[in-house]
Amino acid sequence: MGTFEGHLLPGVGFLMLAVYYSLLTSLALLRKQKVLKHPLLPKKLLGHRLLWKVSYEALTKVVVLSICIIDEYFYPPGVNRLKMIDWEDPRRVFIFKDNWEHVTMFGFFLLSGIVDIVSQAHLTRWSVKLEHAAEALAFYVMVLLMITHIENKSALEIRVHLLLVLPAFLLALVLTVEIWIPDNAPLWVLKSWMALVLSTWMMQICEMYIPFTGQPWRADNPVDLAFLTIFFCWHLALGLALFFTIYGLCSLWHCHHSSWTKPLEMRYQRCSMGSSGEELEKLTAEPVPQNGGV
Amino acid sequence: MGTFEGHLLPGVGFLMLAVYYSLLTSLALLRKQKVLKHPLLPKKLLGHRLLWKVSYEALTKVVVLSICIIDEYFYPPGVNRLKMIDWEDPRRVFIFKDNWEHVTMFGFFLLSGIVDIVSQAHLTRWSVKLEHAAEALAFYVMVLLMITHIENKSALEIRVHLLLVLPAFLLALVLTVEIWIPDNAPLWVLKSWMALVLSTWMMQICEMYIPFTGQPWRADNPVDLAFLTIFFCWHLALGLALFFTIYGLCSLWHCHHSSWTKPLEMRYQRCSMGSSGEELEKLTAEPVPQNGGV
Amino acid sequence: MGTFEGHLLPGVGFLMLAVYYSLLTSLALLRKQKVLKHPLLPKKLLGHRLLWKVSYEALTKVVVLSICIIDEYFYPPGVNRLKMIDWEDPRRVFIFKDNWEHVTMFGFFLLSGIVDIVSQAHLTRWSVKLEHAAEALAFYVMVLLMITHIENKSALEIRVHLLLVLPAFLLALVLTVEIWIPDNAPLWVLKSWMALVLSTWMMQICEMYIPFTGQPWRADNPVDLAFLTIFFCWHLALGLALFFTIYGLCSLWHCHHSSWTKPLEMRYQRCSMGSSGEELEKLTAEPVPQNGGV
Amino acid sequence: MGTFEGHLLPGVGFLMLAVYYSLLTSLALLRKQKVLKHPLLPKKLLGHRLLWKVSYEALTKVVVLSICIIDEYFYPPGVNRLKMIDWEDPRRVFIFKDNWEHVTMFGFFLLSGIVDIVSQAHLTRWSVKLEHAAEALAFYVMVLLMITHIENKSALEIRVHLLLVLPAFLLALVLTVEIWIPDNAPLWVLKSWMALVLSTWMMQICEMYIPFTGQPWRADNPVDLAFLTIFFCWHLALGLALFFTIYGLCSLWHCHHSSWTKPLEMRYQRCSMGSSGEELEKLTAEPVPQNGGV
Repeated sequence: MGTFEGHLLPGVGFLMLAVYYSLLTSLALLRKQKVLKHPLLPKKLLGHRLLWKVSYEALTKVVVLSICIIDEYFYPPGVNRLKMIDWEDPRRVFIFKDNWEHVTMFGFFLLSGIVDIVSQAHLTRWSVKLEHAAEALAFYVMVLLMITHIENKSALEIRVHLLLVLPAFLLALVLTVEIWIPDNAPLWVLKSWMALVLSTWMMQICEMYIPFTGQPWRADNPVDLAFLTIFFCWHLALGLALFFTIYGLCSLWHCHHSSWTKPLEMRYQRCSMGSSGEELEKLTAEPVPQNGGV
Repeated sequence: MGTFEGHLLPGVGFLMLAVYYSLLTSLALLRKQKVLKHPLLPKKLLGHRLLWKVSYEALTKVVVLSICIIDEYFYPPGVNRLKMIDWEDPRRVFIFKDNWEHVTMFGFFLLSGIVDIVSQAHLTRWSVKLEHAAEALAFYVMVLLMITHIENKSALEIRVHLLLVLPAFLLALVLTVEIWIPDNAPLWVLKSWMALVLSTWMMQICEMYIPFTGQPWRADNPVDLAFLTIFFCWHLALGLALFFTIYGLCSLWHCHHSSWTKPLEMRYQRCSMGSSGEELEKLTAEPVPQNGGV
Repeated sequence: MGTFEGHLLPGVGFLMLAVYYSLLTSLALLRKQKVLKHPLLPKKLLGHRLLWKVSYEALTKVVVLSICIIDEYFYPPGVNRLKMIDWEDPRRVFIFKDNWEHVTMFGFFLLSGIVDIVSQAHLTRWSVKLEHAAEALAFYVMVLLMITHIENKSALEIRVHLLLVLPAFLLALVLTVEIWIPDNAPLWVLKSWMALVLSTWMMQICEMYIPFTGQPWRADNPVDLAFLTIFFCWHLALGLALFFTIYGLCSLWHCHHSSWTKPLEMRYQRCSMGSSGEELEKLTAEPVPQNGGV
Repeated sequence: MGTFEGHLLPGVGFLMLAVYYSLLTSLALLRKQKVLKHPLLPKKLLGHRLLWKVSYEALTKVVVLSICIIDEYFYPPGVNRLKMIDWEDPRRVFIFKDNWEHVTMFGFFLLSGIVDIVSQAHLTRWSVKLEHAAEALAFYVMVLLMITHIENKSALEIRVHLLLVLPAFLLALVLTVEIWIPDNAPLWVLKSWMALVLSTWMMQICEMYIPFTGQPWRADNPVDLAFLTIFFCWHLALGLALFFTIYGLCSLWHCHHSSWTKPLEMRYQRCSMGSSGEELEKLTAEPVPQNGGV
């Protein structure tokens, strides 16, 4: 890719995933859930007993990434990049390196979607492990390919991609830890935050293709490199701000929603406590080693 | 900054934080507390029921760091560094790199102070997690910017700052672990010690601007580099010495104080055990996996 | 070695080990075992009470690796490489570096086999720890020697071997963790998968000696290097596919086998649930912190 | 130092420590102890009630390391290296770099000995943490100074010292983990083994000053570098062999010793199980998460 659009599209994809994670985490915190539950498609839509349960997330992953992979090979219409070796060249050189890299990355996220569908069809504890593992694997592969991707690039591109690898790797680590510890609320928050940082940083990379000052970034200038790190730190704060905005909106919605479904006397009591900080307080989902005193 | 004062001021700030941590840890150990409690401002000072509870630490952080950030932009009076791009230069270069770096670092510590205030207004378990997380984030940002800071510097400056990054990173790691395990006494001690090492090492950096031998350090001399590491090891021991001095003083004060508030027969018994080593012995706050025998 | 055969033989060896691990893990998952049990040689074969219990795995390791070590020194017949220093050269140079490297690697795997035999003779809990430790040590030694091995090699060989070190190191880490946590089902799966990736990647290295395009890989070409990482990611997926194929076959066999040994009414019920995903669901071997409610 | 003697003396010191650890671990395993207990000096030797309890280990550490430090400054008699800056040189250069490095290392091990004495005077749980922490700190300082030490050295010296840093760092890590988990038998074995590898590897470094082939090692030869790693792997095996030899001897002594102090019918039963493998089997000191079934 290496273009504005090439970074914008996956950036928007990750942003959707990150916002979805943040919503899920916020609601789980507000509802004091012990487990993150993925909302499933309504059964009526698909006919009873014919199809299995499918979450919105899994379906979206599979559809979007299938389109991405097909685009990578056959877009613009007429081209066909579905070959790896140029057999007409006597040296048998590899071709379409970037496309195969992207397809590999997309493929592992697609695999994660497929694992989601298969495992959500059978709502069991083990399947949650599989989902986390498949998603972690997709991010590890992304890290591995990103490290290969920055070879022989300018100092600026190396820096920008290393700062992309940092949240991706942390995300993969958190997802790996969640294979064993799936019900830890701080990990959910960390995951949502890292996903938000990852996606806003991809937007930042887009900005670097169309700089709003009208002047390109200079790869040979240490001041520009230093500001890149400064901006990354700001993105860390921006990610936090986004997460807490989403949490606040969910908190308002949750307060309003629960006041409808509850009797009158409880309603006022509940909403009076509806401030953001107060809600967080109710979170007691963290695993405290309570040796149940009998 | 890059000046004597520029390193002295944050050094003094960290030293105050480190001494405060050490005091808190010492008292918690002596009082066999399970949790580190931050002393709160007396309510009378601020009027009942109007304002929420605020700890000294949070207030100090917010006040001091706000002043630092304003200074960074508008000191000496008359200047204004509150811009990032030189719009008059046709190349649109970034300016005031160092100031923006410092403001970013200060900003995250200020954020940590604000999180402290918000979360201490609601004394709950979750809020302690948020405080640790915000403080850890501030140190991670410091590490990230410090690594950027040492690019294109001399071997001596790189070494000196890497040895600064080491305790800062360990501090960030300990604070991260404390998000999940907040009530582990050895972690409190490790945190206090690392904060002391960080601040005395900043004093050492100050010394390097005004060397007491009258001769500057030579960046091109491997012997000077080797002595830098030796001195760092000594600072590790100095940090320990400072911590145990503070612990000893707290122990004396605690013994004297508790002898006033307790009946006579308990007083002598208590103070006879008042030696430093003996006090430590009482510490049983560490989480022992006791499967409560029924 | 550095030849096609030199990489094929250990590759086949690792593949056998990996398939054996996968079979063991699959059956343990299907049978809801808490521990991985190594199948033992039938006692009749060896005579009662004379010899101790020996697992197939341990015996194979000892026999195969003994042959490998003897080959390394005395193959082709007539040569003798069982010396390390050329005493006739006045500089006393070291000789047969590669052979001693291989023998060291083989030796630690042989040691692992011997530890297996000794510890399986006494079926106790501690011995499982020893077996894991010895196997982990063998992989750590492999990593250490592989890192030495790639010095002064081309960029392509360095890359190919680093990507070999990655699963080997993860395998060693998992085995190290298993010393303390031997009964964690996700770790078994991770171990089997990493062993499969390690062995199929050794096959890939073999392919690079006899490229199927007829043209050698070019060490100086960044595109070839990039495709190497892409192929490694595919091997990650291939390893997963192999594991789940083995799991599926075991599942079929397990369903058929258990339908013979169980009464009729249970048989149908059991087999109707015999799909791959459904079987996984029964896995509850992971250590859940259940504070046994009394 | 940089001489044969300079490496032999600390090597012998570490070897004594390692053998002592191995003895302690072996006896603890044989006696199924839950904690490693350091043997104390007999009280009669020092007079009752006047002096506190002192372990052999602590006393030896303090005495030996005090002598080392004095030697470092004043040996051979007549010299005085107790200054750091050459005040007569107008450039105020640092002098006696190596001596100050060694004194710093020795100083932290001396500190570990002093902490042992102070904490063993009060046999409490917290003090064991302090002892582990002080010893870990000494090894971390050793690692830090060793990394500084190898700058501007030949490839051979860098390699040899990196391979020394590896077991030292692992030892420091194990000791750090033991601050929190002091009663884990596999960690004791790992600690003893790493200490043995560290000390035999220091002997190897001595050998490199007086090579038994009569020809010096060549720093510019990759074959010599490769053999260095091969030899390190052999030292790993040698460390294991030493540990199990010590364990076997302890096992024999333990069997003989316990047959004296026990009644006759138990004696034979016990000794018949006295084989090395059989003894290990009894080890059940590892912390199994048993949620005490009531």
